[in-house]
Amino acid sequence: MDFALALDPHSPTPYYQQIYEALRQAILTGRLSARQRLPSTRALATSLGVSRATVTQSYDQLLSEGYLQTVVGSGTYVCDELPEDLLHSPAPEIASISPSPPVSLSAYGRRLVDFADSPTPEPAAQISFRYGRPALDQFPLALWRQLLVRRCRSGNWLDYATDPMGYWPLREAIAAYLSQARAVHCQPDHILITNGTQQALDLATRVLVSAGDAIALEEPSYLSARRVFTSQGAILHPIPVDELGLDVDKLAQTTAPIRLVYVTPSHQFPTGAVLSLPRRLALLAWAQQTGSLIFEDDYDSEYRYAGRPIPALQGLGLGQSVLYVGTFSKVLFPSLRVGYMVLPPALVPLFRRAKWLSDRQVPGLEQAVLADFIVEGHLERHIRRMRSLYDQRRQALVAALTQHFGCRVTVLGENAGLHVMVRFHTKISEAELIARAARVGVGLISASPQYLGQRPGHEFIFSYTELDENAIVTGIQRLATLSF
Amino acid sequence: MDFALALDPHSPTPYYQQIYEALRQAILTGRLSARQRLPSTRALATSLGVSRATVTQSYDQLLSEGYLQTVVGSGTYVCDELPEDLLHSPAPEIASISPSPPVSLSAYGRRLVDFADSPTPEPAAQISFRYGRPALDQFPLALWRQLLVRRCRSGNWLDYATDPMGYWPLREAIAAYLSQARAVHCQPDHILITNGTQQALDLATRVLVSAGDAIALEEPSYLSARRVFTSQGAILHPIPVDELGLDVDKLAQTTAPIRLVYVTPSHQFPTGAVLSLPRRLALLAWAQQTGSLIFEDDYDSEYRYAGRPIPALQGLGLGQSVLYVGTFSKVLFPSLRVGYMVLPPALVPLFRRAKWLSDRQVPGLEQAVLADFIVEGHLERHIRRMRSLYDQRRQALVAALTQHFGCRVTVLGENAGLHVMVRFHTKISEAELIARAARVGVGLISASPQYLGQRPGHEFIFSYTELDENAIVTGIQRLATLSF
Repeated sequence: MDFALALDPHSPTPYYQQIYEALRQAILTGRLSARQRLPSTRALATSLGVSRATVTQSYDQLLSEGYLQTVVGSGTYVCDELPEDLLHSPAPEIASISPSPPVSLSAYGRRLVDFADSPTPEPAAQISFRYGRPALDQFPLALWRQLLVRRCRSGNWLDYATDPMGYWPLREAIAAYLSQARAVHCQPDHILITNGTQQALDLATRVLVSAGDAIALEEPSYLSARRVFTSQGAILHPIPVDELGLDVDKLAQTTAPIRLVYVTPSHQFPTGAVLSLPRRLALLAWAQQTGSLIFEDDYDSEYRYAGRPIPALQGLGLGQSVLYVGTFSKVLFPSLRVGYMVLPPALVPLFRRAKWLSDRQVPGLEQAVLADFIVEGHLERHIRRMRSLYDQRRQALVAALTQHFGCRVTVLGENAGLHVMVRFHTKISEAELIARAARVGVGLISASPQYLGQRPGHEFIFSYTELDENAIVTGIQRLATLSF
Repeated sequence: MDFALALDPHSPTPYYQQIYEALRQAILTGRLSARQRLPSTRALATSLGVSRATVTQSYDQLLSEGYLQTVVGSGTYVCDELPEDLLHSPAPEIASISPSPPVSLSAYGRRLVDFADSPTPEPAAQISFRYGRPALDQFPLALWRQLLVRRCRSGNWLDYATDPMGYWPLREAIAAYLSQARAVHCQPDHILITNGTQQALDLATRVLVSAGDAIALEEPSYLSARRVFTSQGAILHPIPVDELGLDVDKLAQTTAPIRLVYVTPSHQFPTGAVLSLPRRLALLAWAQQTGSLIFEDDYDSEYRYAGRPIPALQGLGLGQSVLYVGTFSKVLFPSLRVGYMVLPPALVPLFRRAKWLSDRQVPGLEQAVLADFIVEGHLERHIRRMRSLYDQRRQALVAALTQHFGCRVTVLGENAGLHVMVRFHTKISEAELIARAARVGVGLISASPQYLGQRPGHEFIFSYTELDENAIVTGIQRLATLSF
């Protein structure tokens, strides 16, 4: 490996002295650490384009001053312990530059300063009902590997994509899937492949919302979406949610001009409510009248256990006014970082540019393998298998909650998705309940952070995807032993 | 696969009528295309939770009206050709909503409207000297496949990363490489894994520069960087470049407070100039005094063919004031979408949040495989092999240019990188030169778009990475046959 040193051919200082100074500085600043081996004098001389004698002269001086030591037959190393006086010798010139003045930040940067560093801390409990992950141990990894290997036979995916919107066969596969399974009104041209829902939220906010503009969102709602909106300076208008989803009448009463309304109509996050058909039609009509756009986050719509499939809001409105967004994080695995947006056709050129400027494209191999996975029917099979597994786990959870808590608990949103919302009817505080659960090894996730305004408390998000039925039942049994 | 239809249990319209209307709409809007097969009545009934007779009644009506046809023993299909009168029948209620008012865009969105859609159109020539890609046919694909397969034995990379900054072993490997080969002053803690240089540019601009703030950049400079800056409303201050790189005295004379200065010190893009040591020190001192930050884009520093390694600017300043950025796009392959930033320590928390909000993390499998690739010495070997290959190609290019054009050409920046800049001394126009070259099957890439201000003209970027020596020599020979 190269060892880079700054030599100045125009300097009056001879090379051996420059090399000596540069190495000494590297040792004093820690770039070369104790006991690290140096390049041989021959290698360094070749690399720097100087004579070997020059390098030897520099090394000799460093050896004599105690910075370096030689190990016979092995090479030259930085000394284990540098003499005290060397460490207190005047620092090299460049290191003595005064510290920088504080860095100026953008408005966006200044908003980030106030954010908590860890967006969703999770309890490290023996049995954690945390949400957001599928059953990763059920992912068909061997199959994925086969598809990777097959795609690696040719390197035709190594180059930049021809279109920042994404790999065409993947967009075709997603369009066919969404049209069929979700009644989304779309063509592959209108699909943008994103790095998951998070990037879809970020791009939509950037392209559509300036600082000071109004965004309406469900209350409670997905915290990570809210963070994107506030980081970009949007003014948030929380709209209440009831058992039929977003209260569209309340939305229509908002006086501020709403640029974007963020909704989760299939399985409201976190309450699990399904937006009723009359409200869907009212929401679409409102958007048409006001020129607002709807961000439809269909984050877990693949999973439905009772009742009929709920077509996407987007399809009802024939694609007008709606940015429809989905992800493979909850169907396949989160570190894949692939999601998609179905865009109103007029917005396609802008989002293409925004994606290109942001990071050019989603990685090539992942898009190719994912396209194969869908086209060859593996996605459909995997969803079917997971639906059946999650259904069993969901039933075990709901049954255990009912058995042990009876009327002291209300379970919401259990017909779809990857979690239920649980309200405990108790007088002890939410914090106390979480603490007691932790003492018996059960991790509870409060829904409170998802509220922008007043938090009702005692609401918890219970995901059943990562735990098997035994763990679920044991977890609920342990909760039942707590007196609350 | 599910077939989603909107049924309203509270509607006075009976289900069979609702299903009929929904399917008819699906056909008329193209969601169901001609000759597409419908689900069986049994499957649709199960999926919708209605009786089979209900679905049969809906299908029968559509069959009788000519929307559907049955193929005995095969199923029910959308008709090949819909009767003319059906196509002109009144559109379903929902489709008759008036078209939306024009969408409001953010300030960022409005700036994107003016951007050309295709950022870097490239000539589709038989011999194209286009830049930006390594020799993709030389990438060790079989080795990459082996590393993928090995990582697929365990699924420990499937979940979300614990740190949005990136996979720790990859950050360690990059820190060790940069410290050794580029004299970058860094710890793994200060490294952010990005989706390539493009995302590094985007994130840095977002966090540090508000609309109306000043960014200084080399003139000429990398067009894609400039696009990121202008898309976010920055005011650009182009600073001239000469054979010693950026003219730091001119930079220091700028009266506007510069938030960020974008530089390519190792191999100025596109001129190939190397920023001299005195100018490096002056630039660092200027940044320290003014509180400006330096964006050091070290995009092709792995390749150096003559002279000594040029240490990174960042290391000279001990990491103060510099955001050091590199990419694997030009060393491995572009669709990998992996690059890195070395951040001043104080900025780490902000960039961690910005990355998390933008797209959470770089995909897990790619980071793991890349870490293995570096740690096991493959990166070093690949760079060494490519350096030797590119050196031959570079020599062939420079020799052919000299042989055929002599003093009618000036070749710049030939000691490093993946391209040279070529100035033709001719009186015919640049456009005419490009057109004549195209007629003999040679694609020339003008450097003009990289200039913000006056374009000198007749400057071309010649990359030698994708062409073998024969193609290079043939290309230059063909150019020599043109009378200019």
